[in-house]
Amino acid sequence: MVSTIDSPEYTEDTFISRLLTKVPTPAGEGFAPGDDAAIIELEGVRFLGCADGLIEGVHFDLGTCSPADAGWKSLAVNLSDIAAMGGTPTSALVVLEARLGEADGESAAQAAYEGLGECARSFGVVISGGDVVSADRLALSVTVLGELPAVGEALLRSGARPGDLVCVTGRLGEAAMALATAIPSGTDHPWAERLHRPVPRLEEGRAIAAAGGSAAIDISDGLLLDLSRLCCASGVGARLDTAAVPRPAAAEWQGSGAQRVAPEQLEKAALGGGDDYELCFTIREPLLTRLDELWPEYGADYCVIGEIFEGSGIEGPDGRLDPAGWDHVASGRRSLE
Amino acid sequence: MVSTIDSPEYTEDTFISRLLTKVPTPAGEGFAPGDDAAIIELEGVRFLGCADGLIEGVHFDLGTCSPADAGWKSLAVNLSDIAAMGGTPTSALVVLEARLGEADGESAAQAAYEGLGECARSFGVVISGGDVVSADRLALSVTVLGELPAVGEALLRSGARPGDLVCVTGRLGEAAMALATAIPSGTDHPWAERLHRPVPRLEEGRAIAAAGGSAAIDISDGLLLDLSRLCCASGVGARLDTAAVPRPAAAEWQGSGAQRVAPEQLEKAALGGGDDYELCFTIREPLLTRLDELWPEYGADYCVIGEIFEGSGIEGPDGRLDPAGWDHVASGRRSLE
Repeated sequence: MVSTIDSPEYTEDTFISRLLTKVPTPAGEGFAPGDDAAIIELEGVRFLGCADGLIEGVHFDLGTCSPADAGWKSLAVNLSDIAAMGGTPTSALVVLEARLGEADGESAAQAAYEGLGECARSFGVVISGGDVVSADRLALSVTVLGELPAVGEALLRSGARPGDLVCVTGRLGEAAMALATAIPSGTDHPWAERLHRPVPRLEEGRAIAAAGGSAAIDISDGLLLDLSRLCCASGVGARLDTAAVPRPAAAEWQGSGAQRVAPEQLEKAALGGGDDYELCFTIREPLLTRLDELWPEYGADYCVIGEIFEGSGIEGPDGRLDPAGWDHVASGRRSLE
Repeated sequence: MVSTIDSPEYTEDTFISRLLTKVPTPAGEGFAPGDDAAIIELEGVRFLGCADGLIEGVHFDLGTCSPADAGWKSLAVNLSDIAAMGGTPTSALVVLEARLGEADGESAAQAAYEGLGECARSFGVVISGGDVVSADRLALSVTVLGELPAVGEALLRSGARPGDLVCVTGRLGEAAMALATAIPSGTDHPWAERLHRPVPRLEEGRAIAAAGGSAAIDISDGLLLDLSRLCCASGVGARLDTAAVPRPAAAEWQGSGAQRVAPEQLEKAALGGGDDYELCFTIREPLLTRLDELWPEYGADYCVIGEIFEGSGIEGPDGRLDPAGWDHVASGRRSLE
């Protein structure tokens, strides 16, 4: 039976699959759309390319997010896609929508470019081109191009095999907590920084690729949803030790003087909240020693949170877990409650 | 004196120049933003990249433009930028904004992808990747990558020299006439086809590069504005024989049974209207023979409409001409009256 918009099976992924039947896609193994970044071949050379948009009123609100932060994030989310492939970003093209002809619209656009520029300089990316269009809001559609891993193969979503360990970098759910508790950008709180100025895990991605990691995805839509995408692409299931998933420390939040947060909310944020842009990856257990040798001295740590099994779906300690992350089609709005 | 938003000197180009001071741009000759497409170097190989967005309510209206036409055009305008460099497009990344979760929004998005796919197949381009985001309208931000000319150098805006001839492909102003007279898409009228299904002049661009053309730009914002950009980038002026500029044939319009159009309106459309996506290029007179040999058998013809001189600005038979094309910042709306 074909799923319809109203059925629970109808998700963003279904919608995208249908779109892709209508356009010519690259032939040959490894070129099909479906990974965080595409592998593109031009003049006999292979490289990475990805594109993502950040829209006022959809992804951010200028009441709680400064235009400079929106500019930073519009590039950072794309760099995160390159990181998930183990690659190195080099250049970007930007389509900027702005309220041109209005003083505050134009200054917001200039501020967005300041944030974009900060992010570009931080990660060695140049802005090669793009376009500016008049619109009734601020939006940035960014395409990033980058190099494949210098050591090892590009990390795909489809490489996980039964017996592989499931790992994540850093701590999950802090961006979702900043969103749920409406901490505005510019606030001196680490959660706000996580939401508004995400740091792509580029060095970590390269280390995972060089160590021989089998698959990876960046966590933009929540661990459960993104891990289930990785499992789907690999044709496997994952057993998840939910207690091992690194979550926001409640102390940090109390330290800011705001209301107490229930531990369940922290767990929900860690499992279902997106926007941290950490990496979820799989790797054969014997390769962990090599990964530890290659791991960057600074940056996000990683921890083992589960194991891949032959089958499908995600199993928690108390049974099957439902992907509860962000899905533009199915849910329309992120929900942490 | 620094121009402000209210001053007539403040244009889209000024605004973009300011944006570009805030971000790192590529070093080295030929890499600076400012041409129709950027020359990007990755893994030691040079290629072309460009990005442009098409937004419902700004660039098109679903009342007069079908979503399939919007999809076609979103890719075609980018292919036109590759054509203006003399290149060959190979792959595209697409950020689609759509009213997800609404049946008509989703079917409009699917229809847009049908048109996008038709255009991609027509010109040998594959869709390598992209993203889908939820929004309150249909919009497509497309990035196209392509190869540099196989024969000759990439055509830049900055290569025009005094004595070069100024030429254009095809006929100008037909898209603008379709817009001014509100001919809806799907109508069996050549002007509507020009507006809604523009054909990128890819073979013509390659012929111009191979023949040794000195500079080129695609006419997206009107001949006068785009030619003045080419002149600015080259540090030269252009003498224009306005009577030689190929304009819409009035007969064609009368043939459709609608009201009579004044010849002045046709001239205004040819000089100031954009959206035809023809190429304006410059070339040394002795190279015309070679160009004629290389010119594709089918496709748009070209004609000589002027000459480059040492100086600045555009001179018509009756004195200086004012760029009167589409400018998102300065004019906000296209005007043919």
